[in-house]
Amino acid sequence: MNRILLKADEVSDGGRVVLAGIRARHIAAVLKPAVGDTVRIGILNGAPGHGKLIAVAPNHVELVCQFEAGEPPVPAVDLLLAMPRPKVMKRLWAPLSSMGLGRIIITNAARVERNYFDTHWLDPAHYEPRLIEGLQQAGMTRLPDVTVARRFRPLIEDQLEALSPNTQRIVAHPDAGFSSHAGFATEPSRRLLLAVGPEGGWVPFELALLQAAGFSAVALPFGTLRTDIACIALLAAAGVSRA
Amino acid sequence: MNRILLKADEVSDGGRVVLAGIRARHIAAVLKPAVGDTVRIGILNGAPGHGKLIAVAPNHVELVCQFEAGEPPVPAVDLLLAMPRPKVMKRLWAPLSSMGLGRIIITNAARVERNYFDTHWLDPAHYEPRLIEGLQQAGMTRLPDVTVARRFRPLIEDQLEALSPNTQRIVAHPDAGFSSHAGFATEPSRRLLLAVGPEGGWVPFELALLQAAGFSAVALPFGTLRTDIACIALLAAAGVSRA
Repeated sequence: MNRILLKADEVSDGGRVVLAGIRARHIAAVLKPAVGDTVRIGILNGAPGHGKLIAVAPNHVELVCQFEAGEPPVPAVDLLLAMPRPKVMKRLWAPLSSMGLGRIIITNAARVERNYFDTHWLDPAHYEPRLIEGLQQAGMTRLPDVTVARRFRPLIEDQLEALSPNTQRIVAHPDAGFSSHAGFATEPSRRLLLAVGPEGGWVPFELALLQAAGFSAVALPFGTLRTDIACIALLAAAGVSRA
Repeated sequence: MNRILLKADEVSDGGRVVLAGIRARHIAAVLKPAVGDTVRIGILNGAPGHGKLIAVAPNHVELVCQFEAGEPPVPAVDLLLAMPRPKVMKRLWAPLSSMGLGRIIITNAARVERNYFDTHWLDPAHYEPRLIEGLQQAGMTRLPDVTVARRFRPLIEDQLEALSPNTQRIVAHPDAGFSSHAGFATEPSRRLLLAVGPEGGWVPFELALLQAAGFSAVALPFGTLRTDIACIALLAAAGVSRA
C-alpha cells in the first residue's frame, strides 16, 4: 500500500483516526514506522494527505491526519470493456483502478458468453475492495465509476455520450491496419474513451456500431494478447502518449 | 491458443503430426474445426505455418503441416527484471512471452528478499510451459532466452553487453523526473533493453551502476504500479513508441 485510504466517517473532526485490521497490520508490519513518523493517507473519493502516527501496535494504529486542499481531478481516461471471463474480471479490478480510470463501462458482445454476467465479480461488494486495493497501490484516492450496461446497442447509440461525455473514442482491434501510435497522438487535451473487445474480438456489426459512434480503431503492435494484458497495454500506451 | 506449437521432433518428414492431450482437446473442443480445415501451427523456436486437419477426435488430432520459409526474427526488446515475489514471477511468464521478448534477465537487488530465489518458478521445467502458453496466445513461435544472473554488479558491469548487445538501455524509475515518452522516442531502429526494479524500487547505488552502464531513466505517467503491471505497461509503451 503506497497510500492508506480512509472512509470519510473514520476521521474525527480533529483529524484523528484509529485503525485496526488489515490497514493497521500493514502499517505496523510492512511500513514499520515509529511514533512521530508520517504515512501517506487519503479519504476515499476525497483529498490525499499525510497521517502522523501517535500510536503503533500490531493491530492498533492511531494517526492525526492533515489533508491537501481540493480533491484530485477525474482521471483522463474511461474504459469500455466487453465482459471477460469472470476469472479475468476478478484480476482486472485492482490493475484498472491503479492505472487511473474515470469510468469503467462493462457491456455484452456477441462473443461474450451469457453466463459471464452471473458472476459475483460484477457485484460492488466484491469488486470495490479490489478497486480500493488498486488505488492504495498507486497512491490515488478516487474510485472509478462502474457502469454495467449489458445491452450493447442501446449503450453505444443512446447512453454513451452521457456516461463518457466529449471523449475521443478509440477501439483496440487487431485488424485495424494502422499503428496505434498515430491513433493515440491526436488529441492529448481531450478525455479518452478506450474500448476493449472480448477474447474472440468484436463482430462486424459491433465494429460498425462503434465506428458510427465515432470510434477510430487502433492495432497494438503485438500478437493477440489475453484480455487483461490487452487492457493494461492499451491503458499504458494511451497514458504514455498523453504524458 | 492462437497458434498450436509443436516440438520439431513431433513433425514427421512428410509434415504429419499426431496430437493428443491439451493441444488436441483445445483443437477439438475450442476451435471445433472440420476435417479439411486448417489451424495455425508453428515449430517451437522455428517457423510458423498452417496445419490441415485430416482427423479430429476429442483426444486425437492429425494434421499435415506446411511451414513458412525462414524463422521469425528475434524480438526487438530485452527485459532486465529484479526478481519479484514468486507469486508475481509465476504470473508474469506467460504475459512476458506473449508481448515478444528476445531475452529475460533476472537479477538480485537490495530490495529483493533473499528467499525469492528459492522458488521453483525460476526452474525451466516450471516456467517453460508458461512461456509456451504466452507464445500460443500471441501466435508467436520464438521462446525468449532466460538468464538468471543473481549478482547485480558483475551482471551490470561485465556481462550485460554480451547478454543484450548494442541495445538502447532504459530503466523505469518513478523519480526520473522526465516523461517516458521522450525517453522512448529516441532510437526506434535499435534494439531495446528495459529494466524494471523491485517493488520498493532500486537503491541509489544500483541506479548509479545502471546510469554508468548507459541506462537512461524514464517515469511512466502512473502511480506506483505492481511489478507485473509495471512490466506490461513498460513493454506496451515501448512497443507502441517503436511501431
